[in-house]
Amino acid sequence: MKIVRVAIAGFGGVGRATATLLLNRRPRYRQVHDADIRLVAVCGSRAGLADPDGLEAGRLEALEPGLTGPAFIEASGADILIEAGPSDFRTGGPGLAYLRSALSAGRDTIVISKGALVHSGPDLRDLARSSGAMLKLSGAAAAALPTIDLLEHSLRGCEVLEIEGILNATTNYLLDAMMNQNLGFDEALARAQAGGFAEADPRNDTEGWDTASKLILIANFGLDADLTMDDLVVEGIQSVTEQCIAAWRKQRLVPKLVGSLVRTDGATRAAVGVRTYPMTDPFAHVSGKNKAIRITTDAMGETIAIGSGTEPLATAAAALKDLEHILTARAARAGHGSGGEA
Amino acid sequence: MKIVRVAIAGFGGVGRATATLLLNRRPRYRQVHDADIRLVAVCGSRAGLADPDGLEAGRLEALEPGLTGPAFIEASGADILIEAGPSDFRTGGPGLAYLRSALSAGRDTIVISKGALVHSGPDLRDLARSSGAMLKLSGAAAAALPTIDLLEHSLRGCEVLEIEGILNATTNYLLDAMMNQNLGFDEALARAQAGGFAEADPRNDTEGWDTASKLILIANFGLDADLTMDDLVVEGIQSVTEQCIAAWRKQRLVPKLVGSLVRTDGATRAAVGVRTYPMTDPFAHVSGKNKAIRITTDAMGETIAIGSGTEPLATAAAALKDLEHILTARAARAGHGSGGEA
Repeated sequence: MKIVRVAIAGFGGVGRATATLLLNRRPRYRQVHDADIRLVAVCGSRAGLADPDGLEAGRLEALEPGLTGPAFIEASGADILIEAGPSDFRTGGPGLAYLRSALSAGRDTIVISKGALVHSGPDLRDLARSSGAMLKLSGAAAAALPTIDLLEHSLRGCEVLEIEGILNATTNYLLDAMMNQNLGFDEALARAQAGGFAEADPRNDTEGWDTASKLILIANFGLDADLTMDDLVVEGIQSVTEQCIAAWRKQRLVPKLVGSLVRTDGATRAAVGVRTYPMTDPFAHVSGKNKAIRITTDAMGETIAIGSGTEPLATAAAALKDLEHILTARAARAGHGSGGEA
Repeated sequence: MKIVRVAIAGFGGVGRATATLLLNRRPRYRQVHDADIRLVAVCGSRAGLADPDGLEAGRLEALEPGLTGPAFIEASGADILIEAGPSDFRTGGPGLAYLRSALSAGRDTIVISKGALVHSGPDLRDLARSSGAMLKLSGAAAAALPTIDLLEHSLRGCEVLEIEGILNATTNYLLDAMMNQNLGFDEALARAQAGGFAEADPRNDTEGWDTASKLILIANFGLDADLTMDDLVVEGIQSVTEQCIAAWRKQRLVPKLVGSLVRTDGATRAAVGVRTYPMTDPFAHVSGKNKAIRITTDAMGETIAIGSGTEPLATAAAALKDLEHILTARAARAGHGSGGEA
């Protein structure tokens, strides 16, 4: 049985959920992949813990101050990094240094936070290609909703003509409240904040930046595009007026904040803004925490996926799906098909 | 550049569409997979054509009588078989002999017709495992709708608790007509037959056997179950009465013929029958030729996929997705990652 050493950088709710699920799934990894998976290091921004023999769940409550940073991960002997730190697409956030370090060293990397990938995606993609590291990002590109999976795997061989996605839960909640409870934007926002459905500073969601970030990741890593935030027209929901709401209600249309992308002659145009859907469109019924993507291709027509996992478990599961794909790819490279897809 | 020789057995509408798409995509195969794909043989039930240098589209109109059967395919030198013949789940149909021959010889095989797989799925699966042949069946398991893909790839690592699928277009048309045009079953069927949406003998669709067949393939090849038709309770739409329709209309429920599957303690229970959905459920809006699947897992909640490709192109594209997965897996086995997923 091969030993696989995993480190997790970024140890908030999602990082912890990923650690827990990883440890719980060890029997599966042994059985399906013939792999003894060890969690050899975890760290947040100020504290961490490492053990080359693997950390058990009970030890993850007491991290040691100072054990953090790319050099700490490097020293842990991990051969797979899971990056789950805070996300900042304007600077790349703390994830950027972890990703550069891991990918330069040829370490296979699973990314959950979007910031570094939006900020420096094509650079990181090229770094991975030149070092031979696998770079996976299901957790960052809409988590449990399959997005890049569909492009790479389910629609393989088809030409993608158009994508649209409902990729942000907060704006779903707000638009639902404005439509169904007759609230203005400010009132809907205040209630969402009180209920924990919106951040204290909600602009990353309401102004469309979160949706734009996910769309950029889907385009750059699923379609090999080279989009940056500057290439997108990004409009949020903050300017949706009561008049808009009243008109949509009258027409029986449902508004959603949508990231969209059109490809013509090799060029990719992308935007974020409100679109409306008739009640007969499945997109009209993607509400609350649910997310959805519609991909139109030359040969398979429209393919829609709708996801509704509970966080942070669903995101952890998305990251660990990437882990299994890495294990399968490694096994294939090693010349035997154990753990592969049928 | 490696040469890959493909044969197609079963040369009706879908087989021909697959041949055309395969030939059209040759530049892609060269570029992405470094593969020179040659269509070395095609055959229907009575005639065929073979050329070790590859057949061009213009030659496919004039098949030669007598060139058909597993021995003909064997002699063609093909190293990948695409089986697209008529489907009969009670006997296995003509596909069964082609599949047994190809899989015994270790030839990678892509199956489009359901019959042989429903009739002898676990046997064929075991045959493939023992010879090392890859056996792919996207085209048979609901074609452009991703089903086994989701189970194997997008939901990897999760435990599947439940599946439900709208997998048959004819019953979609009929139920839509009964609900929206106020027609009884017989009248709806007569109109569907006149419009080309239902077969002269519609029972395979209306009695639920087609849905059951797809469900069995999803279970046996996506979840490694061992279901046979005898394990399923199969009810169709032929007994839906005007009273049912009136009651559903009054309650604003939408009926669909659904294949469903529940897994508890390792056991799989499967059935086909009419279920109804409220207007807020995306399943209520899967109509006409569209198909859908909802998969509930322990860690990712509900994942829905909806597909709406135009036939026979979409089915051809599903089969050729399988072809690319085979090319990628072969490249990985050969020790280099060209053409692989990111």
